[in-house]
Amino acid sequence: MYQFQCDYNQGAHPRIMERLLETNLEQTVGYGEDHYCAAAREAIRTAIGRTDVDVHFLVGGTQANATVISSILRPYQGVLCATTGHINVHETGAIEHGGHKVLAVNAKDGLLEAEQIRKAMELHYAEDGPEHTVQPGMVYISFSSELGTVYTLQQLREISSACREYGLPLFIDGARMGYGLASEGCDVTLQDIAELADVFYLGGTKQGALFGEAVVIVNDALKKDFRYFIKQNGGMLAKGRLLGLQFLTLFEDGLYFRISQHAVRQALRIRDAFESKGFEMLVHSPSNQQFPILDNDTMSRLAENFLFSVWQKIDESHTAVRFCTSWATDEKAVDSLINAI
Amino acid sequence: MYQFQCDYNQGAHPRIMERLLETNLEQTVGYGEDHYCAAAREAIRTAIGRTDVDVHFLVGGTQANATVISSILRPYQGVLCATTGHINVHETGAIEHGGHKVLAVNAKDGLLEAEQIRKAMELHYAEDGPEHTVQPGMVYISFSSELGTVYTLQQLREISSACREYGLPLFIDGARMGYGLASEGCDVTLQDIAELADVFYLGGTKQGALFGEAVVIVNDALKKDFRYFIKQNGGMLAKGRLLGLQFLTLFEDGLYFRISQHAVRQALRIRDAFESKGFEMLVHSPSNQQFPILDNDTMSRLAENFLFSVWQKIDESHTAVRFCTSWATDEKAVDSLINAI
Amino acid sequence: MYQFQCDYNQGAHPRIMERLLETNLEQTVGYGEDHYCAAAREAIRTAIGRTDVDVHFLVGGTQANATVISSILRPYQGVLCATTGHINVHETGAIEHGGHKVLAVNAKDGLLEAEQIRKAMELHYAEDGPEHTVQPGMVYISFSSELGTVYTLQQLREISSACREYGLPLFIDGARMGYGLASEGCDVTLQDIAELADVFYLGGTKQGALFGEAVVIVNDALKKDFRYFIKQNGGMLAKGRLLGLQFLTLFEDGLYFRISQHAVRQALRIRDAFESKGFEMLVHSPSNQQFPILDNDTMSRLAENFLFSVWQKIDESHTAVRFCTSWATDEKAVDSLINAI
Amino acid sequence: MYQFQCDYNQGAHPRIMERLLETNLEQTVGYGEDHYCAAAREAIRTAIGRTDVDVHFLVGGTQANATVISSILRPYQGVLCATTGHINVHETGAIEHGGHKVLAVNAKDGLLEAEQIRKAMELHYAEDGPEHTVQPGMVYISFSSELGTVYTLQQLREISSACREYGLPLFIDGARMGYGLASEGCDVTLQDIAELADVFYLGGTKQGALFGEAVVIVNDALKKDFRYFIKQNGGMLAKGRLLGLQFLTLFEDGLYFRISQHAVRQALRIRDAFESKGFEMLVHSPSNQQFPILDNDTMSRLAENFLFSVWQKIDESHTAVRFCTSWATDEKAVDSLINAI
Repeated sequence: MYQFQCDYNQGAHPRIMERLLETNLEQTVGYGEDHYCAAAREAIRTAIGRTDVDVHFLVGGTQANATVISSILRPYQGVLCATTGHINVHETGAIEHGGHKVLAVNAKDGLLEAEQIRKAMELHYAEDGPEHTVQPGMVYISFSSELGTVYTLQQLREISSACREYGLPLFIDGARMGYGLASEGCDVTLQDIAELADVFYLGGTKQGALFGEAVVIVNDALKKDFRYFIKQNGGMLAKGRLLGLQFLTLFEDGLYFRISQHAVRQALRIRDAFESKGFEMLVHSPSNQQFPILDNDTMSRLAENFLFSVWQKIDESHTAVRFCTSWATDEKAVDSLINAI
Repeated sequence: MYQFQCDYNQGAHPRIMERLLETNLEQTVGYGEDHYCAAAREAIRTAIGRTDVDVHFLVGGTQANATVISSILRPYQGVLCATTGHINVHETGAIEHGGHKVLAVNAKDGLLEAEQIRKAMELHYAEDGPEHTVQPGMVYISFSSELGTVYTLQQLREISSACREYGLPLFIDGARMGYGLASEGCDVTLQDIAELADVFYLGGTKQGALFGEAVVIVNDALKKDFRYFIKQNGGMLAKGRLLGLQFLTLFEDGLYFRISQHAVRQALRIRDAFESKGFEMLVHSPSNQQFPILDNDTMSRLAENFLFSVWQKIDESHTAVRFCTSWATDEKAVDSLINAI
Repeated sequence: MYQFQCDYNQGAHPRIMERLLETNLEQTVGYGEDHYCAAAREAIRTAIGRTDVDVHFLVGGTQANATVISSILRPYQGVLCATTGHINVHETGAIEHGGHKVLAVNAKDGLLEAEQIRKAMELHYAEDGPEHTVQPGMVYISFSSELGTVYTLQQLREISSACREYGLPLFIDGARMGYGLASEGCDVTLQDIAELADVFYLGGTKQGALFGEAVVIVNDALKKDFRYFIKQNGGMLAKGRLLGLQFLTLFEDGLYFRISQHAVRQALRIRDAFESKGFEMLVHSPSNQQFPILDNDTMSRLAENFLFSVWQKIDESHTAVRFCTSWATDEKAVDSLINAI
Repeated sequence: MYQFQCDYNQGAHPRIMERLLETNLEQTVGYGEDHYCAAAREAIRTAIGRTDVDVHFLVGGTQANATVISSILRPYQGVLCATTGHINVHETGAIEHGGHKVLAVNAKDGLLEAEQIRKAMELHYAEDGPEHTVQPGMVYISFSSELGTVYTLQQLREISSACREYGLPLFIDGARMGYGLASEGCDVTLQDIAELADVFYLGGTKQGALFGEAVVIVNDALKKDFRYFIKQNGGMLAKGRLLGLQFLTLFEDGLYFRISQHAVRQALRIRDAFESKGFEMLVHSPSNQQFPILDNDTMSRLAENFLFSVWQKIDESHTAVRFCTSWATDEKAVDSLINAI
């Protein structure tokens, strides 16, 4: 039974495993101050084309989100995001545990609009006594989004511009950054991301690593003392070199981008197969997550040979489900799935 | 210019002022352990008709909400409430500051429905991995609501029953409890409140006191160590007797209920005046807050002689505004307002 | 039985009560934006001799401490204070509830020394990996201290200078500011306090008001959005004018200082009586709190006619106890106490 | 230059690396619900000799401490521990960030005594108004301690008994549990730990794994909803199987215990070498951390060929330093060190 239910059901890219093995007994200092982390930082700076960014390695996405948001907001501020945003729905209130309200906005297809940011700010300051309400203090978006959708460069520019107008740092959750950048028709580059965001991260967990997210801080004002935040939030890995080595492998020669392309290619094959058979999609996704709406019979039939996840009940006889691909997805398994469709 | 913009724009009922003056130089122990607090607790127990409830006096509503919610929820739990709930919109994230997500539900006219509670619980446990989402841990409603609306006894019973079915403590914010109980057509008594809620409070700030909210804990499981919560949340008044004396005065002979009736009577006069002139109301409120929808001209005209608050823009030429009455509202000022309408 | 156990066992100065009564039915806007608060702010600015400070009114001391500290520290920072500091021992962890470690330092007689601040900072940055430990982010001292002791101007200057050297805001808890300034031999003025501190407060609860603390923010960098902090921490009184009116009365013509002198005078009479009879004092206090060490017999005998509080067991047969005076202390009661001694 | 500065400067035991490699492309479900985690849980239950414990896998120690403590304490409670406890000094206030005070007690050689627990509880409840102070809500100890010292069975029994007497859950930080159990003269078994603690963890990071701590919950009352806590605190690893596989390898046939013995053996050789040359030790440690006090000359000389960490300055000419061994310590490197000594 092939598993398409998520994009983190396998280990790491074989080249990462090799290097972990090779360096296993080498002695290094801990907490991300070793030479592999230093080299990985350089590789990422090169990929971004900027030397002036800070790069930190954390273990997982919830941790990265909670840590970054904690480092940006003042206690009375909240974070604007789409209702579907990961921080709003799938992190067991980690942001609220850190003291902050998630200011969720209904966003079409999981994509926040610049206009929604402007409106939130205007509404806040139009209050008779804004201090009785949570002040929006930053904006969180995901690239690609929870629904597999991807902002265009124009959309990102508008969001970034609205953020700068109101002094709101823009944080891009890049748990699936590679898949977003490799998505069909994407006109955004990593350089654009770094230019338009104040902080973002490059997801490793879902994109070739055993685990790990590389947080990139672009805005100088947000760099100070970030390591204290990592430690306080339980994200400072003792053997930090494991993170350094993985990101070095992913970024020193473009492996990160190549394997992302593979994942997207397989996902689009799945999407096209569903669409050609007349299935509706919950949303038209150009990236590695696809959400076909299946009738109960088809769902049961496919479930015999494939694992996928139930996303949302549509009506009594239809359900939106999720098929994910990843760097590791077997082309032959996709062939079988397409045949089954 | 008479002020109808809120229900806390004057001091305290004259009998309270008298007693504060009389007892001013008496020496008592602090922190609510004095004989006035003890007597006030007894008076409230008598009004409720139960001897087995704990009564604590806090200074204000945001404080009372944050303290009670902090005392009930486990860290990974959130509080279910209407989108319009005070804790969701007007407390600057005090609940999130305490670590908890407010799980807001769109509720018609500010009134949560039992079915919405059931659905939230079912959705939570239907998740594949409920531990990735915030667990609903209690329910918060207001009596009367932020929109002046009031639950019927039947509605309250259904809510309470849904809460008990799922093990969710029910907390009733009673900042305007007296006005709710005195509202037009209300079939709920204070005894019902105590039977159906696990914790509630009797608002003083808006109902005759200088300040103060009397938190009543009915559910034994929620009584332990509540004073620690009060202190930690900055709500333990050094001269606690000020709270005791005020609530004693309000409850020893039914003053609380009598002055609430006055406020509601005046509010209904205002409502009827608007309705008889063909103004639409944002919501049909039976209690001390009224929300007529005014055209711009009427709004400007009334604003010349009366203070009211802007609630919500309806369209370019219409705005919903709020007129509040209170225990202290001058009948003659209402006469003038009615004439102006 | 006369009560000397604390300095908040009576109501408010009669002039405050009068004015509360006079203005009781006046209508004003809420939340501290009324004209009494405005006038009180001006009176306090005049007393301080500076027009450039922000003044906010909060209800109580724990609330004021938690709110100010929350407004200053970054999440990974802690507050340096004496082990005996109120925030370290008597606020049920309100500071930690807000997310911050109290970095307590053993301080002789409750008085922190500049050298201890320097040492804490040097130790922190000497760590191999300071980010593994809490960064000192501000300094908290009390004037007068929990033990009734009072910093000299020279000591305060050294503390302030150490703070500025390391970029640490200095916060002075002035719950007993008046008693400190009126203390025997005190060479510090309110102007000095404002010059040397970044934030401080003028206590009302223990000094003539029913309740209330006036927070004065001197450092411009700490002024922004402070009202959000007040609201979030449950400290924004609906009928804020009650605070304004009280502080106006206390500060418009120096009442605050005059009544503080009365309290200290009575306390020193008590101290001198004990000392002249050969009793040791836990600490030599020049202000309104006195801590004689009593043998069991004397303790029992005095307890027959006077209430005082047990502070600390010294040995099997001796106990340090606390006698407090206040603005309201009856001179005749002190006479009786002295006779009893 | 051989590195003795810590016990996490190398990768994982070769058998772990092998199995990670073998299983790398296998597909499994995420978040610790895979078959490797299930098998690892069983292996740990077998090692403990109890089937009724819950086992959860987290990534690191600070995370494990913050998560467990968050799951046990009520908001107004604090955790009793030795001043030297890791949570008190080296976690950047993670416990306070979660809202709780660390109630630190001066403990000789890093070992808390039952009597100190009793005294803390008695002092708390002897307060006139215990609700003004943080209530001790649990006890945290480390086995082995931060100073390498190890409780005897008798000491542990007394601590556990004091905890049970006062209803305080006992949490044992076992980041170095294996090294503690393998320490010279240790009369405690893993079964004893499980019998005497309410929760404890088995450290992997310092004991053969790439990373990971296995939290064992013995007390039924503390088991409910623990996965929510893991997720909220950012500790739920997407590819949870990595943790399962590592702990399975360590516990299925006693590898964990064997490699711990190796580490301790090497540490004792180092200790004996220092002691035989007349060096004083900061504390007499029977486990894998040794703290010789070196004169400046010796320190410089050894630093030419070996990395160790500076622990504490003793006087102008002497410093206590730390030498750590681990499962991976090379016997030959220890030979060289001994020669150099």
